[in-house]
Amino acid sequence: MPTRIGKYTLQLDKAPGILGFASVAGKKEKEGPLGAFFDVSHTDNTLGDVSWEKAESQLQTEAVQTALKKAALEGKDVDYILAGDLLNQCISSTFGLRSLGIPFLGQYGACSTMAQTLGLASLFVESGIARRAVAVTSSHFCSAERQFRFPLEYGGQRTPTAQWTATAAGSVVVGAHGRGEVKINAVTFGRIADLGIKDANNMGAAMAPAAAQTLHDYLTDTGASPSDYDLILTGDLGAVGCELMDEILEKDGIDIREIHNDCGLMIYERQAQDVHAGGSGCGCSAAVLCSIILRQLSSGELKKVLFIGTGALMSTTSSQQGESIPGIAHLVFLESQAK
Amino acid sequence: MPTRIGKYTLQLDKAPGILGFASVAGKKEKEGPLGAFFDVSHTDNTLGDVSWEKAESQLQTEAVQTALKKAALEGKDVDYILAGDLLNQCISSTFGLRSLGIPFLGQYGACSTMAQTLGLASLFVESGIARRAVAVTSSHFCSAERQFRFPLEYGGQRTPTAQWTATAAGSVVVGAHGRGEVKINAVTFGRIADLGIKDANNMGAAMAPAAAQTLHDYLTDTGASPSDYDLILTGDLGAVGCELMDEILEKDGIDIREIHNDCGLMIYERQAQDVHAGGSGCGCSAAVLCSIILRQLSSGELKKVLFIGTGALMSTTSSQQGESIPGIAHLVFLESQAK
Repeated sequence: MPTRIGKYTLQLDKAPGILGFASVAGKKEKEGPLGAFFDVSHTDNTLGDVSWEKAESQLQTEAVQTALKKAALEGKDVDYILAGDLLNQCISSTFGLRSLGIPFLGQYGACSTMAQTLGLASLFVESGIARRAVAVTSSHFCSAERQFRFPLEYGGQRTPTAQWTATAAGSVVVGAHGRGEVKINAVTFGRIADLGIKDANNMGAAMAPAAAQTLHDYLTDTGASPSDYDLILTGDLGAVGCELMDEILEKDGIDIREIHNDCGLMIYERQAQDVHAGGSGCGCSAAVLCSIILRQLSSGELKKVLFIGTGALMSTTSSQQGESIPGIAHLVFLESQAK
Repeated sequence: MPTRIGKYTLQLDKAPGILGFASVAGKKEKEGPLGAFFDVSHTDNTLGDVSWEKAESQLQTEAVQTALKKAALEGKDVDYILAGDLLNQCISSTFGLRSLGIPFLGQYGACSTMAQTLGLASLFVESGIARRAVAVTSSHFCSAERQFRFPLEYGGQRTPTAQWTATAAGSVVVGAHGRGEVKINAVTFGRIADLGIKDANNMGAAMAPAAAQTLHDYLTDTGASPSDYDLILTGDLGAVGCELMDEILEKDGIDIREIHNDCGLMIYERQAQDVHAGGSGCGCSAAVLCSIILRQLSSGELKKVLFIGTGALMSTTSSQQGESIPGIAHLVFLESQAK
């Protein structure tokens, strides 16, 4: 069972292992700097289906099926699937995973969902709730644009602080200690942080305080310092949010600039691919984690990574009603088992 | 740690206890047959706020604060809060709970959310993930109507199979074994079931197969029979769904009619209050569980109850795109500790 360290961190003494992982990407993501690392990619973002929402469901289906295949497992070998997405009532997950016959627990952490599902799956295995559990999430540029912003046909202009919702999915299969080339050592689930940001085109700023808070909690709880890690990887703060997070931490005497990177900054060539402040969406951090990051952890090229998923907990309705945008961030400590 | 029994059921050997619970109800719910059992009720369904969504957030705030107070606890005594609701991006939970400063895990199980959050909170305590955890969910007739159906002002006509979304919330504080008058003995998380029902005005029919499946799984796993329990309480199948569930189980030789009741049938006087097939919404099963049911379990009037939350995993978009309505059901076995 997990050991609580400090106020917010759970240390996983048995350290569950990652048995398989997979990423699925759309056209723009495939053309980006991580293109070579995705397991599956699509040149047609409809995936041959009749709606963007159905296409997004397919991203989740493919991510889970590929991750299971890479782990040499089938659906029946998995006790629980933890899944969520950005669409209203999480329909990408429901419709993408309904045929699997695996007990299903819908999760909603906005763009922090990959860290939330991976953290929960790891705790499930650590504590004997599950023998194996799957974490998965997705996003799709076109389904997100028309739900949260404008119909694509409208051709809305984007602000410099806006981010580009990734068309992508990522999935991880977590199993018992000693299996897999990457283990999960600790999990810190975050508290909602709300500094009153109201600009729905500046999600990075809304999420940065939560990311800083969760990392601060983890470092306080464990007594670790940023230099103990190769990489502190935030979800999708983008250029604006990253700078803000680094500044907030600096005021507390914590300097992470040297080892801080962000999935939203990694997934695209910001200038060449015209994505403004970077990538976003549940699928962004999921696909970056489940491509280059877990590959480099598997090979030993990366040794210790703090993965911090970040989410903006708003809806179009809350913004229209003048509400601010609360942020949340969940942290998972991943370590390579490569010799 | 929990013991897996059969394929889908987790037995909680330490049996965490319910330290506190509370229900909050709107005007129509207060006027119904359970009116006397709610902890807090409102005659003005705006709760004095400027939108239905903000009013629904308040329902969650009040449910959690009252449950904590009844348990003689404060927010700082709780390790995690598990919460969700029906609104897009679960904003009732986010905005209702953001000020608590408790690590937050958003859950989405549609109207099964009370069973999902209570089941997870129980497993968290059983397995040492949390010392204490809070489960909460809500729904509001007016916020649900305008999101899923029509603006209230439109005065849409309701079909005979339609259900009435309850304006209500419920919250449970789960803590260590031996504390509290009610313990949680087992949890069975469900698989998505989809028999192809497409009528968004007949959610009971869409959810009934999932409810039958999860109960069937539990009985198979444990070798128990319905007569071992005082009450099998489904979430919000309503009149149509209850009949269908009983019929499905009958074909497998399982007769639950004598001890089956449904939160959607209990919360209103169906004819007198003109709610057609019964109540629904996350808050319906939450408020029924956290009022009469947990009171009767606390007093010993009820001894053993199987609480089966039921959810319809659809959105307006999925229905508009011609999709069927997948259902899910999660089961929690509650037992009185009263002598």
